[in-house]
Amino acid sequence: MSIKEEMRDLLDEYAEYIDAERYDDWLTLFTEDSVYQVIPRENADQNLPASLIYCSSKNVLRDRIVSLVNANEYNPHYDRHIISGVRVTEEQNGAWHLAANYAVFQTNVEGQSKLFSVGRYADKVVRHDGRLLFREKRVTVDTFSVPSMLATPL
Amino acid sequence: MSIKEEMRDLLDEYAEYIDAERYDDWLTLFTEDSVYQVIPRENADQNLPASLIYCSSKNVLRDRIVSLVNANEYNPHYDRHIISGVRVTEEQNGAWHLAANYAVFQTNVEGQSKLFSVGRYADKVVRHDGRLLFREKRVTVDTFSVPSMLATPL
Amino acid sequence: MSIKEEMRDLLDEYAEYIDAERYDDWLTLFTEDSVYQVIPRENADQNLPASLIYCSSKNVLRDRIVSLVNANEYNPHYDRHIISGVRVTEEQNGAWHLAANYAVFQTNVEGQSKLFSVGRYADKVVRHDGRLLFREKRVTVDTFSVPSMLATPL
Repeated sequence: MSIKEEMRDLLDEYAEYIDAERYDDWLTLFTEDSVYQVIPRENADQNLPASLIYCSSKNVLRDRIVSLVNANEYNPHYDRHIISGVRVTEEQNGAWHLAANYAVFQTNVEGQSKLFSVGRYADKVVRHDGRLLFREKRVTVDTFSVPSMLATPL
Repeated sequence: MSIKEEMRDLLDEYAEYIDAERYDDWLTLFTEDSVYQVIPRENADQNLPASLIYCSSKNVLRDRIVSLVNANEYNPHYDRHIISGVRVTEEQNGAWHLAANYAVFQTNVEGQSKLFSVGRYADKVVRHDGRLLFREKRVTVDTFSVPSMLATPL
Repeated sequence: MSIKEEMRDLLDEYAEYIDAERYDDWLTLFTEDSVYQVIPRENADQNLPASLIYCSSKNVLRDRIVSLVNANEYNPHYDRHIISGVRVTEEQNGAWHLAANYAVFQTNVEGQSKLFSVGRYADKVVRHDGRLLFREKRVTVDTFSVPSMLATPL
């Protein structure tokens, strides 16, 4: 299996777990010291540091997810990820840079679906005990006008 | 070619034929005893049996498609499938479980496009005379509020 | 790497460059004598010649892009491509036919995203000095009601 195929598998698993709300499984895809960050595209383009979400470790990310799950009891919805355009670059330190475009659709309890967010992943991936894990997950969001946008991991 | 690559080809062909309204070609992708089913996600999550569509064989599916083609003369539109997140698991009985996310967009005669349906495939695929065919096609729809939603195979 | 994997890479690079507004890099993906064409799906189905855009060479395409960049100073937006359903057929003359579905989303300066265009690529690809290049890029658009639709390469 090519490294690009492996990376695609990683992203497919990532999407499957979020959409199925299997957050414990989702967390297994991150290293302990992983960084999870959501940045508006405008800031990313200008190298501005301001993030919408910044989790400095997997423990922080886990806490965040627990809060989300509780909050979403009052805002039930389904997520559906579409990921495309996977790009892989090997880095010198045994890591890979992984980029891809995403579109996330949300469906409410009335069964109405809408476009929720589009943007791009720019991740760092490492191999740990034989499997690929996210060391950094940086989500650049084109869409930033949605009030509820922080209610779902992207 | 890896089995995952073959499965992706199968889904790509599936989408191409629906979108081009080549329903005879589309039907060649199913075994004679294939089951085609559309289920609301809520029911699927709760293991409720109620389907929006249930075709118990390829002949039933063929009849359904003929009806659709006739009905759509009064509701002309174009479909466009986007499929992502392909997941393949081998089963013991010489079959594979194939899952993937989809988004379908519809365009009316005025050239206006909109999101029509998002959801997930959860299929059973077998190899028959060397080629992969759907033995079961189970479409779990997140979107179920669209009145015309049964007017198109997903 | 299989030819289909190479084709997918070509499309992924194509999308990455448009979305990042790296038009000079984008142009390197075309042969000097390449044809770039946008056709409404209705015309394509009926073999009508009328195009929305027709660039008969890479130089013409380059001029077009320069105009677009200037015009978009008054209409700033972000594009995001999702591509799926890649189909490859080898032709006799050392070229390949490459088809795929696309969805393009646009985001305005307020951070609001919307579906912009869906359709299908039907391209001719050749190998030149070892790398794959577009000899023909034919975009069949389902969506044709958007007034600003010619403001972005698809």
